[in-house]
Amino acid sequence: MQTPAQNARLALLLEVAGTPKPGNVDRRRDLADLRFEHFLAGTVGTETGLEMAQDGEPVGRAFERAVKGMAAQGGDNTQFGALLLLVPLVRAAADHERLSPSAVDSIVEETTVADAAGFYRAFDHVDVFVADPPEEMEPLDVRRGSNAVPELEDRGLTLSDVMDRSVPGDDVAREWGEGFERSFAAADRLVEAGGPATDRAASVFLSLLADRPDTLVANRSGEDVAREVSERADELVARNALETDRDAVESFAADLVDRGINPGTTADVTAAGLYIALERGEIEV
Amino acid sequence: MQTPAQNARLALLLEVAGTPKPGNVDRRRDLADLRFEHFLAGTVGTETGLEMAQDGEPVGRAFERAVKGMAAQGGDNTQFGALLLLVPLVRAAADHERLSPSAVDSIVEETTVADAAGFYRAFDHVDVFVADPPEEMEPLDVRRGSNAVPELEDRGLTLSDVMDRSVPGDDVAREWGEGFERSFAAADRLVEAGGPATDRAASVFLSLLADRPDTLVANRSGEDVAREVSERADELVARNALETDRDAVESFAADLVDRGINPGTTADVTAAGLYIALERGEIEV
Repeated sequence: MQTPAQNARLALLLEVAGTPKPGNVDRRRDLADLRFEHFLAGTVGTETGLEMAQDGEPVGRAFERAVKGMAAQGGDNTQFGALLLLVPLVRAAADHERLSPSAVDSIVEETTVADAAGFYRAFDHVDVFVADPPEEMEPLDVRRGSNAVPELEDRGLTLSDVMDRSVPGDDVAREWGEGFERSFAAADRLVEAGGPATDRAASVFLSLLADRPDTLVANRSGEDVAREVSERADELVARNALETDRDAVESFAADLVDRGINPGTTADVTAAGLYIALERGEIEV
Repeated sequence: MQTPAQNARLALLLEVAGTPKPGNVDRRRDLADLRFEHFLAGTVGTETGLEMAQDGEPVGRAFERAVKGMAAQGGDNTQFGALLLLVPLVRAAADHERLSPSAVDSIVEETTVADAAGFYRAFDHVDVFVADPPEEMEPLDVRRGSNAVPELEDRGLTLSDVMDRSVPGDDVAREWGEGFERSFAAADRLVEAGGPATDRAASVFLSLLADRPDTLVANRSGEDVAREVSERADELVARNALETDRDAVESFAADLVDRGINPGTTADVTAAGLYIALERGEIEV
């Protein structure tokens, strides 16, 4: 029986190992400056922060510590978004009998201004790609990192408030406001998929990408590209290409890597789904 | 800066990710009943035992705990031999300014009968392939697990004594008596190899296999097979095939997998070398 923090580490490892995961680093693919080994080292680096979440320390502080440890490798940002989902989930699993949407909702609702400050401080440790904020949020641009904390305190925004204001442009933040709906749905799909855990991860990644355009792709490459990628994923899922025409999925993967299109948000939700399924004992390795 | 126990986990992950590692599970290859994901879960399972070694608990008890956690996945034995090297190395790193052969020798020399009992108890948690012992050692066949502990105590054997008696048939045990000579040599080669850590791991694995027949292969498939495999590795190393003729290494790897030949001891020493190089800050990810 693994602890919640250990299951979270295993979820990060299984997520990156799943292949083919079009556009992302996976067991068979590195990107130019971001390699599989950076994700392995990043995962080891998350340990202290995840233990803090499990032991009941404030979510913002645990998240900042997890990000700081994760970033201590040469690939820079490997799992920022995944940790933003995993930290409240680990805390919810540690605090509740069963990891459920209402359990994680209660963690979200309890977040404070200090948690929001921890979230902003996390940006001091790593370069995260984010879109420009709306004008009224400019003083709270996350890229200001800890410099934005005084403004945050003036406005009295909790971490939950900050996440609310990041929707619709960020589907990781959206999970916070929606009871981690897609993460729990991903967990259910992982259970249904059957087979080795890394194959399940690849299959569910593709299905999530088919559901909705990836917000990281939309922010980096534009909404048209994000929609095109999602439509291609949908077409592959519709004809069960992972089973019937794996070459088509592999060539989609190669094409996205060539074009520098990296559906990172979809990977984050996949990792969260893996965690939920592991934590509930619904899949095992 | 990672802790010794964290570096040990990273070493286990980098070792299994290195590819091609002929005959073994690697980033690109699963065996029939032993998959990459089993090594990922096995690594997460080692955490408590490695922390115990780092925190100064007896080597035998830390080893048993690491093995118990490692074995809590569906692939059974993934990293038993590697842990038998890593546990004293982690303890030596935690106790000494610099991780050196003499530092780990002092840990080996301090082992007790209770440590030997912990080693035997570890076999209760997992199936490890070992050769039949010589007749006078039959009551101390490790496959008896904890049932052999009374005999062990009657004879007053320390863990270091037990390792001595396992040579020459086991090159993991041989490391214990030789100041972890091959492990430190592997670390030096990893530094010289250059490039991404997982590529270094693959290159050093092949060079270690070329040096000496793998004792796990010898015990399972006979000494002739072990010698043949080592000679083929040597031929590939001599012409720098990883750089000049990668297909030849890949086809060697495929051939060994087809024949069920698994140079596990060589992988264990590779993991120990990775750990030493990481711990000394000589390679980083």
